[in-house]
Amino acid sequence: MKEVAFYEVFDEEATALKACLPSRVKPYFFKNTIQEMKKKKFAPVISIRTQSQIPDEWAPKLQGILTRSTGYDHMMAFRQKTQSQAACGFLMDYCSRAVAEHAFTLILALLKKLPRQVDQFVRFDRDRLTGAEFLNKNILVVGVGRIGSEVATIAHGCGMNVRGVDINPRMAKVEYVPLQEGLAWAQVVVSALPLTEATRNMFNYQSYKKARKGQVFVNVGRGEVAPLSGLKRLLDEKVLAAVGLDVFEEEGAIAAALRQGKASRTLLMRNLKDLLARDNVILTPHNAFNTTEALDQKARQTVHSIRVFLERGVFPYPVPEHQP
Amino acid sequence: MKEVAFYEVFDEEATALKACLPSRVKPYFFKNTIQEMKKKKFAPVISIRTQSQIPDEWAPKLQGILTRSTGYDHMMAFRQKTQSQAACGFLMDYCSRAVAEHAFTLILALLKKLPRQVDQFVRFDRDRLTGAEFLNKNILVVGVGRIGSEVATIAHGCGMNVRGVDINPRMAKVEYVPLQEGLAWAQVVVSALPLTEATRNMFNYQSYKKARKGQVFVNVGRGEVAPLSGLKRLLDEKVLAAVGLDVFEEEGAIAAALRQGKASRTLLMRNLKDLLARDNVILTPHNAFNTTEALDQKARQTVHSIRVFLERGVFPYPVPEHQP
Repeated sequence: MKEVAFYEVFDEEATALKACLPSRVKPYFFKNTIQEMKKKKFAPVISIRTQSQIPDEWAPKLQGILTRSTGYDHMMAFRQKTQSQAACGFLMDYCSRAVAEHAFTLILALLKKLPRQVDQFVRFDRDRLTGAEFLNKNILVVGVGRIGSEVATIAHGCGMNVRGVDINPRMAKVEYVPLQEGLAWAQVVVSALPLTEATRNMFNYQSYKKARKGQVFVNVGRGEVAPLSGLKRLLDEKVLAAVGLDVFEEEGAIAAALRQGKASRTLLMRNLKDLLARDNVILTPHNAFNTTEALDQKARQTVHSIRVFLERGVFPYPVPEHQP
Repeated sequence: MKEVAFYEVFDEEATALKACLPSRVKPYFFKNTIQEMKKKKFAPVISIRTQSQIPDEWAPKLQGILTRSTGYDHMMAFRQKTQSQAACGFLMDYCSRAVAEHAFTLILALLKKLPRQVDQFVRFDRDRLTGAEFLNKNILVVGVGRIGSEVATIAHGCGMNVRGVDINPRMAKVEYVPLQEGLAWAQVVVSALPLTEATRNMFNYQSYKKARKGQVFVNVGRGEVAPLSGLKRLLDEKVLAAVGLDVFEEEGAIAAALRQGKASRTLLMRNLKDLLARDNVILTPHNAFNTTEALDQKARQTVHSIRVFLERGVFPYPVPEHQP
């Protein structure tokens, strides 16, 4: 029997995994990140998502680490820091469509001022509820990879004008432009960027100097790409009309602080609370991937990855040595 | 100077109207319905939306009544009841696209469990948040008129399978089916029906006997087509997984009760409160039409209608004598 500890597992996912893990695996499921647990369960094989910080002292003993995410920058950082020799794996695309649909849901809800509509329903008050239609609006997709190209496909289908920003233009139906040109043109901006040194802080206050006013901004990629402090200021100055976020910088710290329910006075948490109080902001808990369709795919890929690792000592999708 | 009293006008609409009414009109703007006002302002020409009840004693004195809506069943009812000889007008399509986009926004938000995601964000809790993707889902559009055909167009563009129910099949790209067959097939149902004797109470508990379980139901047509009591029971029995409503039976009474903030113990208000408390229900205050694009159209049509009436004594779009 091989012990495998799964961290950051929510209920539906645990159910799906239990149903199909091989019998020679003895699984442990934990809802929290590793750092949130008082008594941390060590196992020679662990599986995390993006928020767990693996204790440095585990590094020499770990045989395998599987991140149940398509992003793996956190895995590279751990390996670099600890020189861990553990096999590291990630999941291939299982949720691009789910994430793209989430982005689109946020866009529509923000254009239509849905949070305010729901708030004001209790008084049947229709003041200040005038929204905007998506038909013929300009949408800029920043990061036209797996997720971004699904966003572009949906936007095309809905009669929007689509442009893209990407270092590697791959999608024929998208007109690619430089970021600044795109921001000056777009009424809606979606970030579906991965986190790299080039994308970190890409959407900062300065980058919006020549942006079109009254934009809707949605981030479903990585939080570090668009820090909260800049978004707050852009909302205050009405450069941005509305913001939808499924991802956050220092997401592990934010999740832990919210789960513990402690009043945190860090600048990050104050910015978060500020955004949370606005009815032109929608925040979701890194849940864009979470559809029945994607979970089904994900559970099957996780089980396949564990199975391959137990047989061959390597994961089917190993985390590369260097940023590709 | 001709006095024209506008009822049920919200702020943005008043601003748009003031900007372009002809100078020989002396306008009065009221946010409330006529029946909500203690001192009711009479004018020879009045303009309402769908919730105002015109006092019977005004009938002989009224010269013109313009409803700022595309529906006019309430106007026919008033004329029948009072034998009023006033010219009655309505607005042509100014908001089909806006209403269709609203329906689609509700569908996406419900499929993705957006209200629950937002609620749980404050604890960063991701349990019970697994949603569904719209790609390849079956959507039934009931009432494929101006609004319904826009819903069908958007759904097609988003990769959904579309069928329609209509007494008058007009749209080539839609496969028309009988209601029962459609309800057994669909995962999402949108009602965009007008209110007629045939459509009243069309979505009742009985009609769902053979419906597919776990459906998302959205109503952007008229509330009387899908009464709250039936929807509540269908949610309780999990026949419906989620409900989104922009329209309500006895909407005038509901709006008045909510605006007054009084605890009302009528069955209707109890059902409403019951639905309001559920996180798989989204209620909006008959606001689907309310986009910048539609308001602009609407103000221009309202002013045109008033202008034509003042010149010729008839509205450009007169309410017909009999249900068409």
